[in-house]
Amino acid sequence: MTEVATTRRSRLTPEREAELYAAVLDLLREVGYDALTMDAVAARTRSSKATLYRQWGGKAELVVRAVRHGKPGTFDGTDTGSLRGDLHALVVHEDDCTMEQNSALMRGLAMAMHSNPDLRQAFREQLIEPETAAFHRLVRRAVDRGEVRADCPALDFVVHMMAGGFVVRALMEDQPPTQDFLRSYIDAVVLPALGAPTS
Amino acid sequence: MTEVATTRRSRLTPEREAELYAAVLDLLREVGYDALTMDAVAARTRSSKATLYRQWGGKAELVVRAVRHGKPGTFDGTDTGSLRGDLHALVVHEDDCTMEQNSALMRGLAMAMHSNPDLRQAFREQLIEPETAAFHRLVRRAVDRGEVRADCPALDFVVHMMAGGFVVRALMEDQPPTQDFLRSYIDAVVLPALGAPTS
Repeated sequence: MTEVATTRRSRLTPEREAELYAAVLDLLREVGYDALTMDAVAARTRSSKATLYRQWGGKAELVVRAVRHGKPGTFDGTDTGSLRGDLHALVVHEDDCTMEQNSALMRGLAMAMHSNPDLRQAFREQLIEPETAAFHRLVRRAVDRGEVRADCPALDFVVHMMAGGFVVRALMEDQPPTQDFLRSYIDAVVLPALGAPTS
Repeated sequence: MTEVATTRRSRLTPEREAELYAAVLDLLREVGYDALTMDAVAARTRSSKATLYRQWGGKAELVVRAVRHGKPGTFDGTDTGSLRGDLHALVVHEDDCTMEQNSALMRGLAMAMHSNPDLRQAFREQLIEPETAAFHRLVRRAVDRGEVRADCPALDFVVHMMAGGFVVRALMEDQPPTQDFLRSYIDAVVLPALGAPTS
């Protein structure tokens, strides 16, 4: 699947690909997922619909690729030598303004996923699963360094803890999770639950 | 506001009120918030629309009242003498089947809130704020008993922790948060982050 997708996309230059993804994110912010059409993407990016379908297969895959491309560095590129350093590093990739724009975008997509199983599946396969796996490797390194005990029960819930702070802040409090909020949450909740050093 | 609402509703017997709320929840599960009409509620419950509007003011308030009424015991009624006991008690009010039905219902409502500011406001005023306040009182008692230090930084995030496990499980994993899951999450994450006894 990844092999095929890479082959398909290899005909575009990285610059052209980045341009396309940026246009898709702009359109998403303007009209939302349900009203976004491949026609609009084709018009905005001066490409043919045939090209879009050949490269990405469909709207759901194109949208998820665009979101994935727009994300700051992956977990795998982060290795500061401590769990606290790694978790804090994940937060500082974006400034608060981008974070606010993106959390509105992601909220819209979360709503669209409710009624679009293909979007939900693409999101899970292309984003949630790889990110979760990378995040587990990051935590695994903390275990290997002796910062977290291998049998710590909170290890089963690292994703729930991290995503929980983010999601609850955005959904229930109607506030974007700022860097300050996320850093405090990491120090007050995630590290203590894991029994890891908090400073 | 509460005064007025109580006066308005005092004309109904508790049995009749419960019957109305149950019908609203049934309709919500059948057609969702956006397609639910006061006409349908009136027809299903053999009441007049005028009565419904006089008693509840509108669809958003009626729906939130129905959800609130259908919830298991409030936090305020829970006092087992330990934080762990209290948190576990919050989980056992519902069986897993009800929990699965309700989490589907709540997921639908969360989506509807995205595009209905009046529903969002009613939800916040009638459910989130009172529950959060009651939850804080429950945690406060743990501080007074000496189970949690008064300056524990995780105290600012108790709601994020609790709701996070629930929401992430439902949204990202497409699985209802079972009692087993929530109990493990409380023991592995919430209590250790608060530095409270885990057994």
